[in-house]
Amino acid sequence: MKILGIDSSGLVAGVAVIEDEQLLAEYTVNYKKTHSQTLLPMLAEISKMVELSFEEIDAIAIAAGPGSFTGLRIGSATAKGLGLAWDKPLLEVPTVDGIAYQLFGHRSLICPLMDARRNQVYTGLYRFADEEGASRFQVVKRQCAVSLDEIATCINERKEAVVFLGDGVPVYREKLRELIKVPYEFAPSYCNRQRAASVAALGAVYLAEGRTVSAREHRPDYLRLSQAERERMEKGEKLTQLS
Amino acid sequence: MKILGIDSSGLVAGVAVIEDEQLLAEYTVNYKKTHSQTLLPMLAEISKMVELSFEEIDAIAIAAGPGSFTGLRIGSATAKGLGLAWDKPLLEVPTVDGIAYQLFGHRSLICPLMDARRNQVYTGLYRFADEEGASRFQVVKRQCAVSLDEIATCINERKEAVVFLGDGVPVYREKLRELIKVPYEFAPSYCNRQRAASVAALGAVYLAEGRTVSAREHRPDYLRLSQAERERMEKGEKLTQLS
Repeated sequence: MKILGIDSSGLVAGVAVIEDEQLLAEYTVNYKKTHSQTLLPMLAEISKMVELSFEEIDAIAIAAGPGSFTGLRIGSATAKGLGLAWDKPLLEVPTVDGIAYQLFGHRSLICPLMDARRNQVYTGLYRFADEEGASRFQVVKRQCAVSLDEIATCINERKEAVVFLGDGVPVYREKLRELIKVPYEFAPSYCNRQRAASVAALGAVYLAEGRTVSAREHRPDYLRLSQAERERMEKGEKLTQLS
Repeated sequence: MKILGIDSSGLVAGVAVIEDEQLLAEYTVNYKKTHSQTLLPMLAEISKMVELSFEEIDAIAIAAGPGSFTGLRIGSATAKGLGLAWDKPLLEVPTVDGIAYQLFGHRSLICPLMDARRNQVYTGLYRFADEEGASRFQVVKRQCAVSLDEIATCINERKEAVVFLGDGVPVYREKLRELIKVPYEFAPSYCNRQRAASVAALGAVYLAEGRTVSAREHRPDYLRLSQAERERMEKGEKLTQLS
């Protein structure tokens, strides 16, 4: 079983192929280049390296949002295009779940923080429950767009140690120091951003559970309205008030 | 602070660049191609992607052994060559430590298993100690070449849950089932082989501690004699016995 994973929800562009119990190839770039310029060339690169032909791919896992609107559209358009062309199902992995999933077996509550601007973070709470030595991934609080205060309150109420990761960490590091009343740490460089291999692996779990969508059905989940939609709505409301 | 990480100690060929708290780029290929054909092109690829110039690199972290003799020589030759050409220090990361290090914050004892042939594994025992919510990496048993029985006895005596990873797992999965008397699990696809980003990140710790070597000094640590050396010794011994 081969799964292609794609994540371009943030500054990181990543592609990965996993086959059953192994990672075949992964390519991650965390740089200012536009994902539309990098994602397909990166996929072409790894495909060449591991002599991958699309017939062997069973499904395409995509970090389906939230994230940068442009990043999500590029990722989703890529996944949809490949899914339609190759006639393969898609696996929609919530971005925040994909980020958390990489910290396999971590003992603490896992809290990804993506900077969502406008005083919000895309976040959620997760854990790898210990079931007689086996780590089982659990969603404690589903991904959402909330203020840092709100997620901090939620964490403090649980009275458990927590590990933070994601591009929201450098933005909110100082504020977290004030807000968080439980023991906490920040995940280090090699496991604190989006990772396509993690998306592919979580996608493999969904595939086993039959949780696929067709390329035609797939839509990214922005979790919030875009700026343009927000402005149009606000304008519409004002017009309504005037009339 | 930018660290280049290289791991070609096993079937996986990997290169990564980390900068302080972030992974800049990583490229991993786990395929039958020869590392001598892949490693430098992979490095050229990521350097181009993140517009990296060698002046910016502070040190080169290398998975310094044990592992495949040919793989280690290719990795070490690459690291030495770059270190000499660029005049940069090297950071020698024990291969088994680098593998274990990727399971950041895992609650169990960490036991990498690399298939060393001749009924041995390259292995060691590690943990991320919980220091008030902060995970501190500890070497419990230094990397070594031993029989599976020996490391299994060692694990059973500790009476702690353990997580296995590495290319020795598919080889010894059934035997582990018989031998291991504590709760255990196997790390999943995206974190169960060598990872260059993990080598780079552990290298960054060494750099902070001043544990560098010059490119000229660096030698891979094979942990055992090569087949050719062994055969020559055995022949020597026989000749001695005959004389």
